[in-house]
Formats: sequence, structure tokens, C-alpha cells
Amino acid sequence: MIDVQNQHDLRNVEIQKVGVKNIRYPITVLDKANGVQHTVANVNMYVSLPHHFKGTHMSRFIEILNTFKGDITIKNFSNILQEMEKTLKAKSAHLEIEFPYFIEKQAPVTQATGLMEYICRLCGSSNEGAADDFYIGIDVPVTTVCPCSKEISDQGAHNQRGTVTVNVRFKKFIWIEDIIQLVEASSSCDVYSILKRPDEKYVTEKAYEHPMFVEDVVREVAKKLAADPNITSFSVESENFESIHNHSAYAYVEK
Amino acid sequence: MIDVQNQHDLRNVEIQKVGVKNIRYPITVLDKANGVQHTVANVNMYVSLPHHFKGTHMSRFIEILNTFKGDITIKNFSNILQEMEKTLKAKSAHLEIEFPYFIEKQAPVTQATGLMEYICRLCGSSNEGAADDFYIGIDVPVTTVCPCSKEISDQGAHNQRGTVTVNVRFKKFIWIEDIIQLVEASSSCDVYSILKRPDEKYVTEKAYEHPMFVEDVVREVAKKLAADPNITSFSVESENFESIHNHSAYAYVEK
Amino acid sequence: MIDVQNQHDLRNVEIQKVGVKNIRYPITVLDKANGVQHTVANVNMYVSLPHHFKGTHMSRFIEILNTFKGDITIKNFSNILQEMEKTLKAKSAHLEIEFPYFIEKQAPVTQATGLMEYICRLCGSSNEGAADDFYIGIDVPVTTVCPCSKEISDQGAHNQRGTVTVNVRFKKFIWIEDIIQLVEASSSCDVYSILKRPDEKYVTEKAYEHPMFVEDVVREVAKKLAADPNITSFSVESENFESIHNHSAYAYVEK
Amino acid sequence: MIDVQNQHDLRNVEIQKVGVKNIRYPITVLDKANGVQHTVANVNMYVSLPHHFKGTHMSRFIEILNTFKGDITIKNFSNILQEMEKTLKAKSAHLEIEFPYFIEKQAPVTQATGLMEYICRLCGSSNEGAADDFYIGIDVPVTTVCPCSKEISDQGAHNQRGTVTVNVRFKKFIWIEDIIQLVEASSSCDVYSILKRPDEKYVTEKAYEHPMFVEDVVREVAKKLAADPNITSFSVESENFESIHNHSAYAYVEK
Repeated sequence: MIDVQNQHDLRNVEIQKVGVKNIRYPITVLDKANGVQHTVANVNMYVSLPHHFKGTHMSRFIEILNTFKGDITIKNFSNILQEMEKTLKAKSAHLEIEFPYFIEKQAPVTQATGLMEYICRLCGSSNEGAADDFYIGIDVPVTTVCPCSKEISDQGAHNQRGTVTVNVRFKKFIWIEDIIQLVEASSSCDVYSILKRPDEKYVTEKAYEHPMFVEDVVREVAKKLAADPNITSFSVESENFESIHNHSAYAYVEK
Repeated sequence: MIDVQNQHDLRNVEIQKVGVKNIRYPITVLDKANGVQHTVANVNMYVSLPHHFKGTHMSRFIEILNTFKGDITIKNFSNILQEMEKTLKAKSAHLEIEFPYFIEKQAPVTQATGLMEYICRLCGSSNEGAADDFYIGIDVPVTTVCPCSKEISDQGAHNQRGTVTVNVRFKKFIWIEDIIQLVEASSSCDVYSILKRPDEKYVTEKAYEHPMFVEDVVREVAKKLAADPNITSFSVESENFESIHNHSAYAYVEK
Repeated sequence: MIDVQNQHDLRNVEIQKVGVKNIRYPITVLDKANGVQHTVANVNMYVSLPHHFKGTHMSRFIEILNTFKGDITIKNFSNILQEMEKTLKAKSAHLEIEFPYFIEKQAPVTQATGLMEYICRLCGSSNEGAADDFYIGIDVPVTTVCPCSKEISDQGAHNQRGTVTVNVRFKKFIWIEDIIQLVEASSSCDVYSILKRPDEKYVTEKAYEHPMFVEDVVREVAKKLAADPNITSFSVESENFESIHNHSAYAYVEK
Repeated sequence: MIDVQNQHDLRNVEIQKVGVKNIRYPITVLDKANGVQHTVANVNMYVSLPHHFKGTHMSRFIEILNTFKGDITIKNFSNILQEMEKTLKAKSAHLEIEFPYFIEKQAPVTQATGLMEYICRLCGSSNEGAADDFYIGIDVPVTTVCPCSKEISDQGAHNQRGTVTVNVRFKKFIWIEDIIQLVEASSSCDVYSILKRPDEKYVTEKAYEHPMFVEDVVREVAKKLAADPNITSFSVESENFESIHNHSAYAYVEK
């Protein structure tokens, strides 16, 4: 059977990324508290394609995913990238994995236990066998109380849910849990899946005592990430789903 | 050229709805303040198909849309439905139109003017030439302050943006603007696109003085709609994007 | 601490559904081939609220979810509903669970193994302790080749991915796998996660030999479901993401 | 009333982008055939914030939008950016506008006229009064027939809808219509909103005669953009919603 993809291409255009996108796949990831965690990922896998080949072999990406049986952790990420380079005969490879990650979290007063979901991303590239780039991305939901609204109002202050998205590059292994903790401590108050009445009193008052703009949130997170010698570069964005508007307030910092 | 759709079908299954979905189309709709308004709609058009026909003729739906040139208002809705029945030789027809609708709205203190967006839906069916059903649906963004959080906390109260969705059936023509006004008056405070500092003080304090659960919101809206003799039936749902959780609080009432 | 939710409400509006929406939760579901399967769900939980109570107790829904520890299967669905009625002191309860479900599937010629994802929904209600309604919903991706395009063209035929959504009510326990198989056998060809070249030749030729409109797909599925004495009622919808248009073709049948 | 945003900040973190996101706004854009076109945009507006200021003034962004009354065209884009720098007292400004754009398009044989929707983006930055960067982005739906499937199969070939996204930077004014035409001519066949039977025969046969991988599509578009001296840089990505899989094939090229 003819291999159409292997035919020569004469247009002289090298392709930076070609592959498969939005593959859904059950995976297990490392979990600080429980060893491993089952979740469901969205996976993108690309390689570079030299100008003289007509196409890549898409089914091989899925075969690689099956080889690793969904064991997609920070620790074996570079192995997967190398396998992609080798199997697809490519100079560079790119892998992007997004998945919901759950952490057991206790309510601040009653200690009632619930599960919080954080959307996480592991993204990496390799170039001729060497890890070229790798970063972790996490979306952390937070509460923010508006400092201006609190200051100018006789009572109350508008507040809302926001999402803080951090992308970090680092030297040594780092736990998703530790990045989340750093971000949650940089908001008016963190968000919980379960709160009984004494907890609700606590988070309401704590948030009211710590009013923060989106600007404050990204600055707090940036200051802490910049102070960590293990973090080599990062970006932080904060989006507030304003309770008094139908649009978002937004801030972005990178280093 | 053979008409495959016109061929006989022997499976004896009548199809309730068949047609085209997610057609994007620029339309003009009636506007209480300015006569008409330009917007962009998402359109679904279906007819019934008797058991003995193999298929419907999909391109004719688009031709009907072009005939009306995007002039899709409450007033000519039944004309479009009748045209669908006639052109597709169908016993019943269904039309669903969703579009963003903009209303100029002044900030409560400074009167600064901004544009608020409301997602609206016009949905109707006809049966053998007679209007069978028609309703208007509107998504209205609102602010809600939690009564429990306010009551139990020394200061502050968690609040958030919410969306109230109403579907109403009625006897005489009704303005989208009037339904929106009724809903906005049934929340802790309405939402604005522009607020200067004196406005922000006003909405913060007003919301704090009118704490409402999702239950309160749907009850207030339901009570008002039930009291209007022009409204023949309705449903109301309220979803709060809780600022202290990563999930929503939700309530639903219909009559 | 005052229980605001327990206060009296004088507006005399009973609420049909009130509760929590879009809770993300890791669950295990029954798996025909492997016993159980880990996945991540989107959960909605509602109860009815009598007219004289101001509000429901939202945190109790999460506690119930934690009690069942994500063990949310068809078999214990009614237990969860009864627990909701009891804990929330409600006359009726509603539970909706949506999750990706994975099935190992072999390519038709080479037997290469891949994982197919199907979005599934378990939805049920109870009324004063009795199961009131329960149905399974599944989205099945399929390929459809257009019969008209094939008939009128000298060669080729436009085809595309489509989604068939079935909702079924039934008497005795039913496997998700069996419903999926019934639907996949009612399309031009089913969809695979991995296909080597001999497989691609097979699916291309099989699909070309079995051209089907959206009308044909819903009729085939409806005919088979109607013939199964275990199925008490159903709806079938088929949406084709037309390759020659930027909108969908759609058909819907219910019984 | 105190101006909280104007207060000093001591954390020494400059913010690259701060502002408002996901503002919905009706706009008019330039239209090659009709002069102007009404549509509805999603708008993001950001400025830089020096390290010593606590916050930016969010309401001023909306005021600027109102000043230009939705007249947001390529031609006055830099005026808006300058107004943002001036009003917000910022060194740099960023503006991103996304909107559906409609073009009347005739079916290839019968000349039946329909409206095609293309999602467009205008994105630009300024730095101390000077235009720093500006590009147009467009999503173009296309049909692709798989060359491998055609080659190895006795008859038929799998095909599907795909989206080609191009981002272009250029020297002189360029029409959206011209970029779209270039992309549509680089696929197996373009996509139409209305096709009568002779048209359907034409597009089926044309597509079958021009099989293209995602790799072919990005190479064709890249070759043509590279040959245009008015285009200074570009990226092209092509995503196929594979009809035989439940995931996408994807290729990306930039220059």
C-alpha cells in the first residue's frame, strides 16, 4: 500500500508543528498526598516536519500515547518527547496535556473536607533529543474583594470569583500543590468546595479584611515566584468576573 | 439530476424535527429606544418530515432566511414559520433565534452612559399554518449579595455575578426591555458596563442593603410575572457564580 | 448562629429545583469490560423547596457527594436521590451527572487498539422516596457520507463527523456499551481513535458504501430502540458538522 | 472621594497588561463590497502600569470605546491606542477585537447567494505613541479531502470541515476579503452557506480532485503569503475535524 505521507514535497516549506489535537485520554498523574491520581486529559502532540516530506504519520502519535498507558507525569515527560522524535523521525517534538486535578481541602473552621478542582497543564518541547522547554500551567480560582469599593462605601464591598493562571518554568521537580498554595495565599481569600456557616463567616470576614485588585493579585504572586530560586521564569494573569459588570478585569505580568 | 431526498422511505418513522442548526446570520431586531438594532444571530430551523419521505431539502431553509433578509422580529415570526411549512411542504415548523441585544444604560449616580449586552432568544413553532407556540428567552446578568453571609459576618458579605434566565409566553406584543427591567429590579443590584466612583459606592451599598439568595431572585421574578395578565406562562432560573465556591448555586421555577 | 435559610418566606412561591450546579467531581462508574472506570464528572444536584422556607442548605449537597465518595453508578442512583430528599427535607430530588467514558476499541482490520471517548449522562429524579424518572444519555461520534452527494457526483461524496445523542429510559439494567454499539451500527461508519492504512481503506470504503442522511441515522437508531422491549421511551438526535457548509444538518425523533 | 487606584505601590512590580476583558460591543467595520458592516465584537483593552501606581482606572477604557462609538476599523486603530495611552497615562497600550464578519458568496454553479461567516481579529499595540505591532487574524472554514484515504481506497475518500487560522502583519492596508480568498483557494474546496444540487455535485468533485492534508493546506497558504511583498510576517494553522476520528489533525507554520 502506497505511503502517501512519505512522498516528496517540492514547495520547500518546513512545518514547525504537525500532529494530533484534542485527543481525550484517561491518565494518571503524580499526587503529593496520595501518590497518584486518575483524571482525564486533553492532549496535543506535534512534531516538526522537514520541507521535503509530504506528511507526518498521525496514527503513530496515538500509539505512543498507548505505549505510556496514560502514565503522563512531569517525571517521564521528556521520555515521551524523545519517543515522539524517534518514532516520527523528527528534529523537534511538542507535547501539551491539560487535565482537571483534584485536591482534598478542609474548610477553615469546621475542617469539613471537600474536593477542589484545578485545571493544570504540562507543556514541553524537545529539540534533537534535548529537553528544550517545559512549563507547568495552573488555573486557580480565588475570591477578590475590591479595595476601591470597600474604601468608598459605607458598608459592604463588591467581590467576585476570579481565576489566576500561572505558568512556571523551574529547575528541580516542583509539586502542583505548592504552586496552588502560593497563589491562594495571594488573593483576598481562597475558594472552597464545602463551607458550613462558621466557615462562611470566616471567609467573608477574611476576604473583607484583605481587599485586592487584579493588579494586587498578580503582583503578590509575581513577588513570591521571583523570590523562589527554583523558578527560572513565569507568567501570571488574573481575571476577575466582576460582580458589578458583565465583563472582566484583567492583569498580566511575566518575567 | 435525481432528487434523493424525495425518494420513498419504508422504515415508517416520522421525524419530528429536521433541518439546519447553528447558522450564523446578521439580523435586525426591534429596539424600543431606536426603532431597530443590528446584531448577529445563531439560527436553528426545523420542520417535521412525514414517514414516507427520505429527506428534507436543507438549502431551502437558507433561501427562506435570505428572503426575509435578516428582518427577524417578533412581529413577522409567524410569517417565517408559515413560509417554512409551505416551502418544505411540512405539517409543522420550528424556528429558534439567539442573539446579543444591546441597551444603552446610565450609571445610577453620574448618568455615565454605557451599553449592556443581554442574550435573547425568540423561539416558535407552527402547526398546519397556525402559530402553535412562541416564547421569548432572555439572559440577564445581575449582582447578588448572600443574605446568610451578611447576617453571620461582622462586616462584608460575599456577593457575585449571576445570570437570570427567563422564558415567557404572552398574549400581546411585549418589549424585551420591559422584561429585562422586571428582572433587574428583582436582584440585589443590577449590573452596568460603566460605573464611576460615585456609582460604584451606590451599587455596593444598594446591593448590601438588598441581600438575596438564588431562591429569592426566582421568587421575586416569578411573583411579578405571575401578576402580569399579559404573561400566560413562564420559567425563571437563576444561577450564581458563587465567589466563595468554584461551582454555582441554582434555582428554577416555572408556571 | 442564625439559620437564615430556615426562615419563613411569605411570597407563597414553591421552587421546583434549587441546589448546586457544575460541581466537578472525580467518580468511578461501572465498566462492562473492566468492572469499574475512573473518570471526572460534572454534577448538578437539586431538590424542591416548599413555599414557606426561605432557602435550601447548599453545603449538604456536597456532603452527600462526599458520602458516596464518587461511587455514582446506575445501581446506586436511587440511593443518592433518597439521601438528598432526606438530608434536605425535600419532597423531590434531581441528580444529573455528565462524564467522559472510555472504551477500548480495535481498528477494523489491523486490530490496533485505541481508546474512544463517549460523553455520558445519568439523570434521575425521585418524588417522596420513589424513583420518578431515570434516563441515560450518550453522545456518540459517527461518520456520515451524504447519499445525495454520492448519487449526483461522478466520484467522491462529501462526508463528515457527526454526533448522535440518545436518551433512553428502560426497565432492566442496561450497559452504556450496548447502546453505543447500537448507535455506531446505525451510521455510515463508526469513528476510531487509531487507524492504520489498511483500516483507513476499510472505513473509507465502508462509509462510501453506506451513505446516510441525518434523517437516516435517527430513523435507524429509532427503529432499533423501538424494537427493544427493555426500552420504554427514547429520543434520538443527529447533528452533522457538514464538510461543505459552516453549519450543521440536524434531525430529532422521540418516542 | 479617595482615589485608591492612584495610591503608591511599594512592591516594585511593573505590570505589562492591565485592563478590561471580554467586553461585548456592537461595532461597524470596513466592508469591501458595501462600505461598512454592522457586527458585534468581543473587546480586550489593556495598558501597562508603572510599578509605583496601585491600580489602573477601568471605567476609562469603556469611555474610550464609547468615544469611538464602535467605529473600530483598521484605519483608526492607532488612534484608539493613542487615546488609551493618553487617557490612562500609560507607556504602552494593547487592543484586541474579535468579531464575526459576513461576506456574500455565490454558489459555484447556480450562483445562489448566501452569507458566509468568518471570525476576524484585529490586534495591535502601541508604545509611547508609536504603533508597535498590528496584525489581522482570520478563521476560514474549508473542506479537505484526505490524499491518503483517496489513494488507498477503491472509491470515496474521507473528508471533513477544517478551520484555517491566519495571522498577518503587513505594510499597506489590506482587505479581509483578499486574505480569505487566498486561504479558500488553498484548500480542497471552499465552504458555502447555500448549495443547490448542481453546486453540491461541483464541490464534491472539485474537492475529490484536490485532496490535501493539513500539511498541504498550511504550505499552500504559507507559500502564497511569503510571495506577497506587502505581508511582512505571518502564521498559518490548519485544524481538520477528522471525519474518521474524534480528534483533530493539526499543522502550524510561521514566518
